[in-house]
Amino acid sequence: MNKKSKTGSPRLKASRPKAGEPSNKKAKAASVKAKSSSPSSTIEKLLAPPIASGPVGNPKPRPSVRVSIPSPEEGGPKPGEQWLYSFVPGGAEGDSTMRDLLGGKGAGLAGMAKAGIPVPPGFTITTAVCNLFYENRMHLPRSFKPILKEYMERIEQAMGRKFGHGDKPLLVSVRSGAKFSMPGMMDTILNLGLNEKTLQGLIEETDNPRFAYDSYRRFIQMFSNVVLGIDKDVFEEVIAERKKTRHVKKDGSLSVDDLKDIANAYKKIVKQHIREPFPDDPWTQLMMAIEAVFKSWNNPRAIAYRKMNSIPSDLGTAVNVQAMVFGNTGEESATGVGFTRNPSTGQKEFYGEFLTNAQGEDVVAGIRTPRPLSELSDLMPQAYKQLKEITTRLEQHYRDIQDFEFTIQDGNLFMLQTRTGKRTAMAAVKIAVDMVKEGLITKNEALLRIKPEDLDQLLHPRIDPNAAVTPIAKGLAASPGAACGKVVFTSEDAVAMAAKGERVILVRTETNPDDIQGMGAAVGILTTRGGMTSHAAVVARGMGKCCVAGAESVRVNEERKTFTVGPTIIREKQIITLNGSTGEVIQGEVPTIEPELSGEFATLMSWADNLRKLGVRTNADTPEDAERAVKFGAEGIGLCRTEHMFFAHDRLPHVQRMILADSAEERQLALNKLLPFQRADFKGILRAMAGKPVTIRTLDPPLHEFLPSRKEITEEIAAAKAKVDTVSYEESLQLQAQIADKERILQRLSELAEVNPMLGHRGCRLGITFPDITEMQAKAIFMAACDLAKDGIEVFPEVMIPLVGTLAELKNQKDIVDRVAEEIFKKRKLRVKYLVGTMIEVPRAALMADSIAEAAEFFSFGTNDLTQMTMGFSRDDAAKFLVPYVEKGILPADPFVTLDIEGVGQLVEMAVAKGRQTNPKLKIGICGEHGGDPRTIAFCNRMGLNYVSCSPYRVPIARLAAAQSIIGDVSDAQK
Amino acid sequence: MNKKSKTGSPRLKASRPKAGEPSNKKAKAASVKAKSSSPSSTIEKLLAPPIASGPVGNPKPRPSVRVSIPSPEEGGPKPGEQWLYSFVPGGAEGDSTMRDLLGGKGAGLAGMAKAGIPVPPGFTITTAVCNLFYENRMHLPRSFKPILKEYMERIEQAMGRKFGHGDKPLLVSVRSGAKFSMPGMMDTILNLGLNEKTLQGLIEETDNPRFAYDSYRRFIQMFSNVVLGIDKDVFEEVIAERKKTRHVKKDGSLSVDDLKDIANAYKKIVKQHIREPFPDDPWTQLMMAIEAVFKSWNNPRAIAYRKMNSIPSDLGTAVNVQAMVFGNTGEESATGVGFTRNPSTGQKEFYGEFLTNAQGEDVVAGIRTPRPLSELSDLMPQAYKQLKEITTRLEQHYRDIQDFEFTIQDGNLFMLQTRTGKRTAMAAVKIAVDMVKEGLITKNEALLRIKPEDLDQLLHPRIDPNAAVTPIAKGLAASPGAACGKVVFTSEDAVAMAAKGERVILVRTETNPDDIQGMGAAVGILTTRGGMTSHAAVVARGMGKCCVAGAESVRVNEERKTFTVGPTIIREKQIITLNGSTGEVIQGEVPTIEPELSGEFATLMSWADNLRKLGVRTNADTPEDAERAVKFGAEGIGLCRTEHMFFAHDRLPHVQRMILADSAEERQLALNKLLPFQRADFKGILRAMAGKPVTIRTLDPPLHEFLPSRKEITEEIAAAKAKVDTVSYEESLQLQAQIADKERILQRLSELAEVNPMLGHRGCRLGITFPDITEMQAKAIFMAACDLAKDGIEVFPEVMIPLVGTLAELKNQKDIVDRVAEEIFKKRKLRVKYLVGTMIEVPRAALMADSIAEAAEFFSFGTNDLTQMTMGFSRDDAAKFLVPYVEKGILPADPFVTLDIEGVGQLVEMAVAKGRQTNPKLKIGICGEHGGDPRTIAFCNRMGLNYVSCSPYRVPIARLAAAQSIIGDVSDAQK
Repeated sequence: MNKKSKTGSPRLKASRPKAGEPSNKKAKAASVKAKSSSPSSTIEKLLAPPIASGPVGNPKPRPSVRVSIPSPEEGGPKPGEQWLYSFVPGGAEGDSTMRDLLGGKGAGLAGMAKAGIPVPPGFTITTAVCNLFYENRMHLPRSFKPILKEYMERIEQAMGRKFGHGDKPLLVSVRSGAKFSMPGMMDTILNLGLNEKTLQGLIEETDNPRFAYDSYRRFIQMFSNVVLGIDKDVFEEVIAERKKTRHVKKDGSLSVDDLKDIANAYKKIVKQHIREPFPDDPWTQLMMAIEAVFKSWNNPRAIAYRKMNSIPSDLGTAVNVQAMVFGNTGEESATGVGFTRNPSTGQKEFYGEFLTNAQGEDVVAGIRTPRPLSELSDLMPQAYKQLKEITTRLEQHYRDIQDFEFTIQDGNLFMLQTRTGKRTAMAAVKIAVDMVKEGLITKNEALLRIKPEDLDQLLHPRIDPNAAVTPIAKGLAASPGAACGKVVFTSEDAVAMAAKGERVILVRTETNPDDIQGMGAAVGILTTRGGMTSHAAVVARGMGKCCVAGAESVRVNEERKTFTVGPTIIREKQIITLNGSTGEVIQGEVPTIEPELSGEFATLMSWADNLRKLGVRTNADTPEDAERAVKFGAEGIGLCRTEHMFFAHDRLPHVQRMILADSAEERQLALNKLLPFQRADFKGILRAMAGKPVTIRTLDPPLHEFLPSRKEITEEIAAAKAKVDTVSYEESLQLQAQIADKERILQRLSELAEVNPMLGHRGCRLGITFPDITEMQAKAIFMAACDLAKDGIEVFPEVMIPLVGTLAELKNQKDIVDRVAEEIFKKRKLRVKYLVGTMIEVPRAALMADSIAEAAEFFSFGTNDLTQMTMGFSRDDAAKFLVPYVEKGILPADPFVTLDIEGVGQLVEMAVAKGRQTNPKLKIGICGEHGGDPRTIAFCNRMGLNYVSCSPYRVPIARLAAAQSIIGDVSDAQK
Repeated sequence: MNKKSKTGSPRLKASRPKAGEPSNKKAKAASVKAKSSSPSSTIEKLLAPPIASGPVGNPKPRPSVRVSIPSPEEGGPKPGEQWLYSFVPGGAEGDSTMRDLLGGKGAGLAGMAKAGIPVPPGFTITTAVCNLFYENRMHLPRSFKPILKEYMERIEQAMGRKFGHGDKPLLVSVRSGAKFSMPGMMDTILNLGLNEKTLQGLIEETDNPRFAYDSYRRFIQMFSNVVLGIDKDVFEEVIAERKKTRHVKKDGSLSVDDLKDIANAYKKIVKQHIREPFPDDPWTQLMMAIEAVFKSWNNPRAIAYRKMNSIPSDLGTAVNVQAMVFGNTGEESATGVGFTRNPSTGQKEFYGEFLTNAQGEDVVAGIRTPRPLSELSDLMPQAYKQLKEITTRLEQHYRDIQDFEFTIQDGNLFMLQTRTGKRTAMAAVKIAVDMVKEGLITKNEALLRIKPEDLDQLLHPRIDPNAAVTPIAKGLAASPGAACGKVVFTSEDAVAMAAKGERVILVRTETNPDDIQGMGAAVGILTTRGGMTSHAAVVARGMGKCCVAGAESVRVNEERKTFTVGPTIIREKQIITLNGSTGEVIQGEVPTIEPELSGEFATLMSWADNLRKLGVRTNADTPEDAERAVKFGAEGIGLCRTEHMFFAHDRLPHVQRMILADSAEERQLALNKLLPFQRADFKGILRAMAGKPVTIRTLDPPLHEFLPSRKEITEEIAAAKAKVDTVSYEESLQLQAQIADKERILQRLSELAEVNPMLGHRGCRLGITFPDITEMQAKAIFMAACDLAKDGIEVFPEVMIPLVGTLAELKNQKDIVDRVAEEIFKKRKLRVKYLVGTMIEVPRAALMADSIAEAAEFFSFGTNDLTQMTMGFSRDDAAKFLVPYVEKGILPADPFVTLDIEGVGQLVEMAVAKGRQTNPKLKIGICGEHGGDPRTIAFCNRMGLNYVSCSPYRVPIARLAAAQSIIGDVSDAQK
């Protein structure tokens, strides 16, 4: 929870007041005014006269400001333009809404200052200046410096100090501050303004040469690293060397002379590196620091971060220059961070930590253990009360949990920063619901407060965030949750060990449909290849199994049954833990936490359900999945993939016999064997979803997926052939027969082999060339439906034909389904309501939707395949170019995660319009992976779809996203 | 040229007049009237009174007709509806334009009759009756029979005979006749009306029992087969048995008693089969025959044919009932077929064959050799003159070559049929051009007379149509022309043998890019797998090489270097001949004919060029292809595939080194080696197309296509490993190094392996991830262009970026091309005009065309890939379902041959509109295989494209089709 403090701090003073004994006058907390502290303290000297304080509200800008600002003719700001915005407690030129111009930090400081909250005085250089800097070939405008001087004077006035003077020198901090918090931007520079002259002034003033020298050597180190680009380590080596010489372990044990020597050594290093002396002139330091902030806007890390987060590169960054304050001038001083509520649980409690007589760095260094904020009330009751009141006001003002930083100098509280607090999903839900109860926000606001994706964290067991773990590898966070188990390398081993009650993690280079059984048996899946929508990832999410995919540093050796990551070797049956929410792979077992779906979660979801128009269904292939999805709020099944049922061990032989059949009769025999299985499957699912619609898709994947791999069969044949001469005559005959069977499979595999199976003999093309397969499936569906209907269970089967591109295809298959349904209704002497519809997943189907709607009672967008074909991206192969595409900004995002609305979205829009033009009552849904993606859901809502369907674990996400998309609509309508 | 005559005929009579001695009175040829013949001949008795003859023109319909027609209330035709249309020479109720109602044959007979041409009198039952028959659950309307009787009476009146009477019985033929000629429809029934009673009448009348009995047994046989569905063979067995008993070989040698016995035996067979006696009542016979014709409209063969040829199934068929005439009553009689011009060469000559005293079947049976028509002028000068005059008039009337059938009974000429003559492409061109010169047709009509696809026959050497060949197998006619050479089974062998000057045919299960060299070296390609757009077919057409693809009965054994077709084994180096225009595979050598592009062909093409608006470019990868295409009239190159250059033996090692490179530096070294090759390639092509635009596409296929196959490498590694222990230490070191190299390739192959390479890492995705490849190609293009420009040669390179789906992709690649161009222009101190554009082949590109046009100077539709992705059909895998799809009528045609206009066409239309909306000057073409398909070309013309591009051999086809599409537009505009 501790963060590096943004304020610098002199070293601890030797004299320590006793604990609980306030050494300064008490600040009047009620009026939230900063007060001067005891004039005997070091900081008192620094801060006299006391910080300006006025009534809370809008202070008049000082009329003197504009006087020395250059006119546009002199190269100054254009009319209406202002380059710098000052802030002092009780008065600010900007305010908290001006994030575009002042950046997040600058706007926050302005807001706080305006609200009379004690912040160290300072000013913000706008993002517009940053853009001018770039337009001007990396130079600040000529007229910038005079304005800067004017604003520095304001700080000087507020602090009663002079920048660069030997007497009461003013020190400042310089920080970047863009509209959005951006890692990769420039680090803070503290204590700027120090040189040999001001250093002496500081020593004279504070009578604390240790504090002054330590500040100085820290400043040189920071400035050299951040502005001059010299590696930190070379400076650290100097200190390490000195400590070694002095036989001490802590920096604090070094003498004033040591620190003096170190500062001199630093300056020598700088001269060696830049072939110039360290800049001594405070104004030069300041200008260089400001330019360094602007330059850091375009450093590679920042550019990469912006691209990844879709942040426009012309936003620019602001620069904040602020007077230094110190939290480590004695036991009346302190520094700390805190939250207005518990960011981990959401509990309404004052939460945070502090250290007396310290700076942030000390906390990070782990020298002392920080104390909980509650203890501050005993130590410094006045400051504590003031802090609590200020932060409560801030929360009320921003109407959200605040994450704040503060420094207390000799009893005087300074707020250094406040911002919206990051929180866990659990906390987010509790805080949102609590704030509605407190009347702080509306239900709609509460719904918008939760990032739908974050709900996922609440649905899976997860790694205890307090557990100390060291991951051995990192892949993609493909399917969230945590899983811990023994490593296995084949699907068969997974099934075998799971059957013995072992928890196993299936580790594969990549998975394929053969692995479904093994994936089902495993508690988690780890692959070394494939992306967020690889087979492993998609199936795992569907199953709600934890999965880390594409962990590229992992090398699997299936033969030896080991995997290695660098020097680490993990053997079969060793235990690993996967964190599917972060992509981490951890050696050994790590404690996990179980999910909780009641309480605030339930409340929030009920608000979402009341609001949303889109139905939310689930993609489920088994009664177990279906039941789980209903628990998560699913209102039906939007996609039941019958082929997943085909892979079960008791069905696969019949499926294979069907594929290998030489005649229609032989095929029929195999189909007859499959019928009772399918009937039982459908009965289970329809029963689990009693009263709700269930969309069942007829067979979709290419047939070769149901046969063993070529390699496997070839090896088996070789093994059998090798054995045939070593066994008895009778056994050899048996073997020969087996070999013949396997050779037949091999032959069929050759016939079924396809160059691009994605665009091959699959979907309704199978049902059209083998109508008996569709017939069997239709029989199974309607027999199951009638079985249940007879028992009074409500069933609403919806038969969905995949991969349709023409009306004739759909008609061909619909005719079979309708005929079979009539036959069975007649035989069973009852009827059930059912629909026949189609997937819209081939681009042509969208183009021909008006025609196809003549035979379709519903459409369901198969956006995975629609994306693959419309963009020409094979999901299995796209990783090679999709990653560089997103990195280079050629695509804004992975189109398999968020629908490509501008491209693929056109086809969706077209299909909806054309389909409803033919059949205004057409029911339309989406069942691709995108059905659980919030941005796609908002699009579906806009398009007027009837429902989205997603994997069970994404159902709550979809419910929330569907509600949010309505709020979006409402606010759009209000504009 | 001989066809089975549609008229039946009694057996030859014993008495023979001498040749050249006319035995009947001469007909007055000038007035084209039919005249009665000598009353002494057999037929004279049958035909008295003479055939009605009147003035040529519109005879008044007889007022008596409507008298006995039932009214609508009685179930008769509705007002304005007429079910039957009679025709007698000089008068007809219908005319030659009424093909919809009367079918092609009925309309033709009506037209001839109306024109006073002697046809046997009869009537046509309309297609509307056929539809009524089906609406009425396969029953004729109750009121149909009275009308039928009325119309039969008219024949009776015209012939002076009575249907079913013992005295002068009327015999008729019954034939189907749909709007379009349709194989698979019902066969003709002749001599209908015969039974024991009429038979006796016929014998009495003609005094020719042999003729009568033979007619009778033939009638029973035909009727039983066609109407009652009894297999022909059971009847043939009876005759064979009798001939065996009589020790004779020919039917003609059987006695009258034999024929009598045979007729009786036939009737017994019928009774056994249908458990009823053979229908004796002539009216029953007639009604059954008419219904059989209607039923045959929906027999499976007819349905299949209609689906294949996109003939609507609700057209229905008409039925033609016509009086029988006989050409074999003596030496004054004859039967023959002919053409008004030579259908093989187009020469204007009276062309045909005849036999005196004969029927068509005799010709087919090969008993006698038919004589050329010219000889008829000596034998029967009157009939000959009349025939010539009539057929000349028919040609003038129909303004096209006529294919006619005639029968002369005892000197009386009867025209049995006339229709537009089928002709070879060569003849079609000559006839069309000649007819323009003769003032018979306009140039536009001449252009419309040629099926563009047929021109292909003129561009390739072809099998001499007169050569007698027996194909051993048949595949798809994948690339036309003929090729004869020695069989080879590998690309390497093809190259090696071709280098020795041998003509070879490359025989493969299927081809892949590795085979390009071998295909180039071979004169023809035969594959056993793959369709019309398989790799072999596409490449072969591009190369203008003869190719037979997907010859499924051929089994290749690469190991043994043989192929088998059933029991036939063909070994390496045996000679075979391929007929790429028919798909036939012939053992041994067959004579061929060379093409001729001047004369009428050149005239016709110049007319086409004057008319068309669409430009015609070619797809060419080599200077040779480019030069050939220019000869064929190409106006530029629309697609130059740089990757085909990569496969040459001197480049492939560098390409592979580039792919295997571990670093950018290593890759650059390989690219540097490739640069001079590519530069030379482009120089060659740009020079061949001097003054014309050349569109060069940057690298498109996935990189693994340039590496050897996994299997090959694995085997090589195994072989090397086996050898390593058997050689000297030094050699073993070398081998080890080779093994390491190969293992590296194997590793890279694994990395490059893709599940769906079609949708994988290819096209501009390569150029974006490996910008140095694009850079090298751009360098080669502009260096080559500058080299030529310096020599004063005009060059217009157009750089085309493949597989673009977003503007950012195109911009990324365009930036590289533009930068490289500028660099080279600067260095060379000259500039050449060039364009940068993109393929539109990913559906998303069409959807985003407005955005993509911001950076594109031209679009070129890659309709192959656009079709694959829009329809979700992998071209390589689609055969499995495309064939059944077309058969079942789910698709009207193979979408890889003719563009799917209603689906994929929408994207083309959208892209054109959106692209030109952004950039009104956008140049737009098409470079997929469809660019040479006439229907697609017409669509491109409608869409306002600038040009089409196709393989060199399709250039003339495209020129003609482009002209035809304009005529289509004109005639549409005139409506």
